[in-house]
Amino acid sequence: MPPVTPLLDTVSSPADIRGYSVAQLRQLADEVRAETIDAVSQTGGHLGAGLGVVELTVALHHVYQTPEDILIWDVGHQAYPHKILTGRRDRIRTLRQGGGLSGFTKRAESPYDPFGAAHAATSISAALGFCAARDAGGRDNSVVAVIGDGSMSAGMAYEAMNNACETTGQLTVILNDNDMSIAPPVGGMSAYMARLVSGGGYQSLRKLGKSVASAFPRPLQEAARKAEEFARGMVTGGTFFEELGFYYIGPIDGHDMEALVPILQNAREIRDRPVLVHVVTQKGKGYAPAESADDKLHAVARFDVVTGRQAKPAQPAPPSYTRVFADALIAQAEADPRIVAVTAAMPSGTGLDLFGKRFPDRTFDVGIAEQHAVTFAAGLAADGMKPFAAIYSTFLQRGYDQVVHDVAIQRLPVRFAMDRAGLVGADGPTHAGSFDIGFMGALPGMVLMAAADEAELARMVATAAAIDDRPSAFRYPRGEGLGVEIPARPEPLEIGRGRIVREGSTVALLSFGARLGECLKAADLLAARGVSATIADARFAKPLDEDLVLRLAREHEALVTVEEGSMGGFGAFVLQMLAARGALDRGLRIRTLTLPDIFQDQDKPEAMYAQAGLDAAGIAAAAFGVLGSGLSAAGGLRA
Amino acid sequence: MPPVTPLLDTVSSPADIRGYSVAQLRQLADEVRAETIDAVSQTGGHLGAGLGVVELTVALHHVYQTPEDILIWDVGHQAYPHKILTGRRDRIRTLRQGGGLSGFTKRAESPYDPFGAAHAATSISAALGFCAARDAGGRDNSVVAVIGDGSMSAGMAYEAMNNACETTGQLTVILNDNDMSIAPPVGGMSAYMARLVSGGGYQSLRKLGKSVASAFPRPLQEAARKAEEFARGMVTGGTFFEELGFYYIGPIDGHDMEALVPILQNAREIRDRPVLVHVVTQKGKGYAPAESADDKLHAVARFDVVTGRQAKPAQPAPPSYTRVFADALIAQAEADPRIVAVTAAMPSGTGLDLFGKRFPDRTFDVGIAEQHAVTFAAGLAADGMKPFAAIYSTFLQRGYDQVVHDVAIQRLPVRFAMDRAGLVGADGPTHAGSFDIGFMGALPGMVLMAAADEAELARMVATAAAIDDRPSAFRYPRGEGLGVEIPARPEPLEIGRGRIVREGSTVALLSFGARLGECLKAADLLAARGVSATIADARFAKPLDEDLVLRLAREHEALVTVEEGSMGGFGAFVLQMLAARGALDRGLRIRTLTLPDIFQDQDKPEAMYAQAGLDAAGIAAAAFGVLGSGLSAAGGLRA
Repeated sequence: MPPVTPLLDTVSSPADIRGYSVAQLRQLADEVRAETIDAVSQTGGHLGAGLGVVELTVALHHVYQTPEDILIWDVGHQAYPHKILTGRRDRIRTLRQGGGLSGFTKRAESPYDPFGAAHAATSISAALGFCAARDAGGRDNSVVAVIGDGSMSAGMAYEAMNNACETTGQLTVILNDNDMSIAPPVGGMSAYMARLVSGGGYQSLRKLGKSVASAFPRPLQEAARKAEEFARGMVTGGTFFEELGFYYIGPIDGHDMEALVPILQNAREIRDRPVLVHVVTQKGKGYAPAESADDKLHAVARFDVVTGRQAKPAQPAPPSYTRVFADALIAQAEADPRIVAVTAAMPSGTGLDLFGKRFPDRTFDVGIAEQHAVTFAAGLAADGMKPFAAIYSTFLQRGYDQVVHDVAIQRLPVRFAMDRAGLVGADGPTHAGSFDIGFMGALPGMVLMAAADEAELARMVATAAAIDDRPSAFRYPRGEGLGVEIPARPEPLEIGRGRIVREGSTVALLSFGARLGECLKAADLLAARGVSATIADARFAKPLDEDLVLRLAREHEALVTVEEGSMGGFGAFVLQMLAARGALDRGLRIRTLTLPDIFQDQDKPEAMYAQAGLDAAGIAAAAFGVLGSGLSAAGGLRA
Repeated sequence: MPPVTPLLDTVSSPADIRGYSVAQLRQLADEVRAETIDAVSQTGGHLGAGLGVVELTVALHHVYQTPEDILIWDVGHQAYPHKILTGRRDRIRTLRQGGGLSGFTKRAESPYDPFGAAHAATSISAALGFCAARDAGGRDNSVVAVIGDGSMSAGMAYEAMNNACETTGQLTVILNDNDMSIAPPVGGMSAYMARLVSGGGYQSLRKLGKSVASAFPRPLQEAARKAEEFARGMVTGGTFFEELGFYYIGPIDGHDMEALVPILQNAREIRDRPVLVHVVTQKGKGYAPAESADDKLHAVARFDVVTGRQAKPAQPAPPSYTRVFADALIAQAEADPRIVAVTAAMPSGTGLDLFGKRFPDRTFDVGIAEQHAVTFAAGLAADGMKPFAAIYSTFLQRGYDQVVHDVAIQRLPVRFAMDRAGLVGADGPTHAGSFDIGFMGALPGMVLMAAADEAELARMVATAAAIDDRPSAFRYPRGEGLGVEIPARPEPLEIGRGRIVREGSTVALLSFGARLGECLKAADLLAARGVSATIADARFAKPLDEDLVLRLAREHEALVTVEEGSMGGFGAFVLQMLAARGALDRGLRIRTLTLPDIFQDQDKPEAMYAQAGLDAAGIAAAAFGVLGSGLSAAGGLRA
């Protein structure tokens, strides 16, 4: 049953709440919270972060003249309440569905989303761009960036903070400090913020807020509060931010509307120096199952609102690739004390939480800091360790220069476990791992593998562990494996050797990665139409199994490569090798199936694969197509 | 005449100077400085930075037990004195030459270079890797990273600093503060460091150092100094670093051997907490022409030691591509007030210093902060400006995720001016721009161009300025253009259209970028052997001129693509398009010439192009080769 939301029902845009009293804002926040919980209970998605910023969201839209005032949410997964308030309530139960609202902020969705996000720590840089454009145009709109404390470990946030004062006089950064990104945060900055919050200033303020609010008539009360707030910033610290040139205000209770509204009103008036407002919130606030969960229900499946119980698959699924990676790495590490693991704030996402339980001293979570993670791993390798850096494909883009400069040029044996390679379903284009085959495969000396199934992944972990003279990388997709048996003691693969999975005669399907299962199904579709297909698993995009590729080309009428990645990847490497070997000179019916040259919006994985032509039907159709193109030339299709 | 260096002549490795007195260390520093100046006067290279750290280099090798103690130089271009002291003096006059010493630190060169560098801000991350490996192995060697203040604007340095305390108890970071990277530094951190140095503590210390040193007998003197040093860190500030968990010592005069040695000895003894030693140095120290130069002779050609006058080319060369870009962008900006320019600490390297002189309010130097630079530009574009982000190809790797996530997915019209694309000669593999065609061309919606000559570059600046609905990028090489006439008012190019430069009949050479000149020479070589070549300039790698490519393929016996980039780039895109169109089905003699799949060491550009097979001879040979491969099939070479 949908929640009762009489006030929210009257709000069609933020303009409607500009005249609200604090009491009305409080009620609105309660209703927005209830609506958020109900919506996510139906769609699944990010819950805890949004619940933590309900009051902040309401207060921001009350104080700032959005959308003329620019409001940028870092990461964007906490913006469901924002979407509810900015004209998207009617579609809020389509979140993360095909054709529905994005799970993040998105420019194409609304003028209230001036800058989309999904990766962490971009908001201050983008906000400064808006500031510079405004200043150049002589406009006077305000610009606000809301960034979580977890994002503050990212160098990009620091780069932007470092540039704020030289760029503009008006920028408000809201530091949303919930002491929790996806996992508990790490690092000196986190400890520093904790000291700010635990200091006398913040703790005494929480009491002060109540007394001040009740003791004075309203106008005086506000004035007194303003003076108090500003003084407090100076008293309690914030010198780190002050030293970068910010005016620091805080820490402030981010669920106390009476504190938030006047402080934001004040911050908005400061136009000669960037302001940082340090707001303390509770992730999952106001929903007991979220408040009590370890991860504050960071991301959830559909769930029951009353109990908080999430929908589970009806029967035990095969283990996820992530789990298989973790188990395989633990097994390798049992036998080799030099194996260590590095994650950038994704211990559970990468499975390294399991590794960390087994080997706490050999696990390094460096926070959201992919650049550092990669070069840190390079340093470990340079001193004889065997580091596995487990980073989602999409986030490894953050450390690309470090992969090139610190790892590949020095030929250091860092092992990159590239999780979430390929399409990722509901998380959409910002999280798709589309480009790693190209950007890693282009690097001299790199060994680049992709796992066809979970058994192959275990073998590739063993292979990477054994490669000690150069960097290596292996990619594997989001989600569950195929349910194949995983070898207890996987043997390392021969470097640069693929395998024939099914012998056929007419067309060869050469798969790189986990689309192999679809290739096998495509072979069945082809067989049903009288076409015999050889199915091969390349295993390596680099070094390429040239003999295998040449043999497939030679012995079949057509060759189709299949990969879950962009153009310029595996199929491109195959073609360049074939061209160099002269294997195209006399004709080769070859097609290279890749992800399409668009950013695919979120949808069910099956729908996305169908759009990409990378499901069995699409692969079979491509094979038919290329054979059909030979009809006119060869005078008929030999089956 | 080489300098007289009686003490240095006796030093074959750092072990020889461990017992030196401060007086001897001073003399050694003087001799190392003279040797550095003399060597660079013959080789050219980075001068100012090395001269600034001569005393520091000597003191570090005196105090630390290198190479067991790990010493990592950030960027590495200041390490010439280090190379002189660590067994490479006999080759110091081969710096940056083919087969000679690298201009940076390099693992393959020496055990005293435990981690190579060339890009900024990697040293602390790498050092922490060595710390973690040491701690895991129960060893007790020290680890030191020396990082310049300019690198401190890079987020990567912050990410590492943020992780230091959680990673290890023993790390010494030497902050080499010369208030000058290549250009004067920018940002809040820089201002903060300036405040530290200008504060009473540092200024009074400089006097104190002298009096303390003379007033006490030696052992007491040292003890007094130690106490003083430690107290000073607490007094003068350093809270920024303290808040990240470092023990802060400084600021210290980095040319005062009597201060440096005991402080480093103390720092080495601290093993329960990372230490930051803030050392103030003068770039170009001890060489008058460097001290008085605006850029402190950051990087020089060969020069006369007495006068400091650098060798100039005998006759006026054609303008550099960089200069042509700057002039063209200024011309565009004169006509369009929305054009703004962004650089990441390379105003002179990118030519944006010229733009900045003309349009100071429309020029943003964000410091060494490529991640921020890209997303800042995205924010500018989102608010209607026309940002040109001028970033060397190799450094754009630092902002790759931002290009994908903030620019391309949002289809924002940021213009990327990718300077130093391709090989870069003496700067070697760390600075080569090898991968941008692939990593940019893979992105949906991107327009990717490469300039065949300086006139084309001017046209591409105009084209990028006109593309206002999606991101665009254009690449151009290091060095001088061909001397062609540059159009006064360049017209925007038609998007996705290449051009035929010379009509021929037998073989088609399809160039993407500035190897076009070599293709024309190759055509002459081919003509001399009776082979008629069509020369085409693709101009665009994305969108590809499919009609042009198909026509070239159809109307010639062979097609050779030529690009100064890695595999997976332009040639790969051509092949994938041809495959999709069925144009390979019946045979196409095609070769895709790219940079070789190795990291090429520094050398003269001509030698590097010859090694790559991308000079006229190599291109012609490839064309002969592919035609020759047709001999057996076609029964003879038709010329």
